[in-house]
Amino acid sequence: MNSTIELLLSHRSIRKFTDQNIPRELFDTLIRAGQSAATSNHVQAYSIIHVVNPENRRKLAELAGGQTYVAECSDFLVFCADMKRSTEAAERAGADIVRGMTEQLLVASVDTALMAQNVAIAAESEGLGLCYIGGIRNNPAAVSELLRLPDHVYPVFGMCLGYPDQQPDVKPRLPLESILKEDHYQDDNDAALVAQFDDTMRQYYLARTGGNKDTNWSEQLKPLFTSKLRPHMADFLKGKGFKLK
Amino acid sequence: MNSTIELLLSHRSIRKFTDQNIPRELFDTLIRAGQSAATSNHVQAYSIIHVVNPENRRKLAELAGGQTYVAECSDFLVFCADMKRSTEAAERAGADIVRGMTEQLLVASVDTALMAQNVAIAAESEGLGLCYIGGIRNNPAAVSELLRLPDHVYPVFGMCLGYPDQQPDVKPRLPLESILKEDHYQDDNDAALVAQFDDTMRQYYLARTGGNKDTNWSEQLKPLFTSKLRPHMADFLKGKGFKLK
Repeated sequence: MNSTIELLLSHRSIRKFTDQNIPRELFDTLIRAGQSAATSNHVQAYSIIHVVNPENRRKLAELAGGQTYVAECSDFLVFCADMKRSTEAAERAGADIVRGMTEQLLVASVDTALMAQNVAIAAESEGLGLCYIGGIRNNPAAVSELLRLPDHVYPVFGMCLGYPDQQPDVKPRLPLESILKEDHYQDDNDAALVAQFDDTMRQYYLARTGGNKDTNWSEQLKPLFTSKLRPHMADFLKGKGFKLK
Repeated sequence: MNSTIELLLSHRSIRKFTDQNIPRELFDTLIRAGQSAATSNHVQAYSIIHVVNPENRRKLAELAGGQTYVAECSDFLVFCADMKRSTEAAERAGADIVRGMTEQLLVASVDTALMAQNVAIAAESEGLGLCYIGGIRNNPAAVSELLRLPDHVYPVFGMCLGYPDQQPDVKPRLPLESILKEDHYQDDNDAALVAQFDDTMRQYYLARTGGNKDTNWSEQLKPLFTSKLRPHMADFLKGKGFKLK
């Protein structure tokens, strides 16, 4: 196994960082590595807001649900799906543009994720740690106002970057057989595989908490789908010009 | 610059492959590397269909718009956003589930993209080449039928994997200043930066085609947004239980 694959397999989220700052040259290299990711039809449908202002960092930490490391890490990024740049470029070239299609939302969201994952891996390859912040979608309207995001641009997630001040264990993943299927989707065996994974996760939580956290994967998922997690997203996106049509 | 960052910066799509097959052990390692990517709340909202059947490969090549390398590469994967497994697990654990929220569509699409990008990087680190196939969304209903995808699962994109039989140049990317913004979104300078990038891309196309392809980035984007690219996606997703609500 080569060192890049070893790096990928060793990923875990970092939420505690030292005071050390990422040098600017390295920071720019991480972003360039992000730009090298595949992009649908070369659209590059993303923008990154690099949040430097400490007061805005504190506000974002609160908006993301009180995640203090958003304010404390060396660099905080908000990755935005951006259909403004490319549609305006095509418009200037004379195209009669259609905006807001669901396909455009997907293209921009996927482009943004591929790019961010390259930034993440580049960062880890330099000994940095990171944590994706989906909590940026808890209140995407307030985030958009703070970052002055225009129509056809929406904040997909944030990312904390910095030098790790913790060494958490790697979190187990679902059995390979559960997520990899040959030729056709079938999940006859999935309840059994999930039960097996529930055991794995229970042991993981118990070991990490000295026996205090007695739960499993399925239990941990329950609040995610019962509380209508982020029920505002459809209306928010429509308000930003993504029509979901 | 370390070798992993050099690898990321050297990415280009490969559409021509040798006859050599990827060993099964390496293939499984690539998928495990994919699973190691960050996942929203540990949901792991994805499934991969590994399409082995040659007849299905030919059909998918056609459905993706006549992309013959879908049939010819060593391994072809369809990456699916999957909200079925996790919601059913939470349901078995006693949760009263809400399905189809737009937030769930985003979580699953982003999880899938992060995972796929790890597979891509792991593959490239082993000297393999790859090409994302967004054309899988040209006819997602037919793809879903062929792969027997159930409700709450949708095909986001495909990926061709194999040993490269071509060495295309790295494609230029937008200027860093165009996609990286400090504290606030602003694009006052964007038309100028895009004009600069249009020049870069014109030179790139001319050099690659011996002067025959005289176009630029903005021109190439025009058909993408005028033809209402994939206008079926919203209705297709709704039919699959993603309510866009």
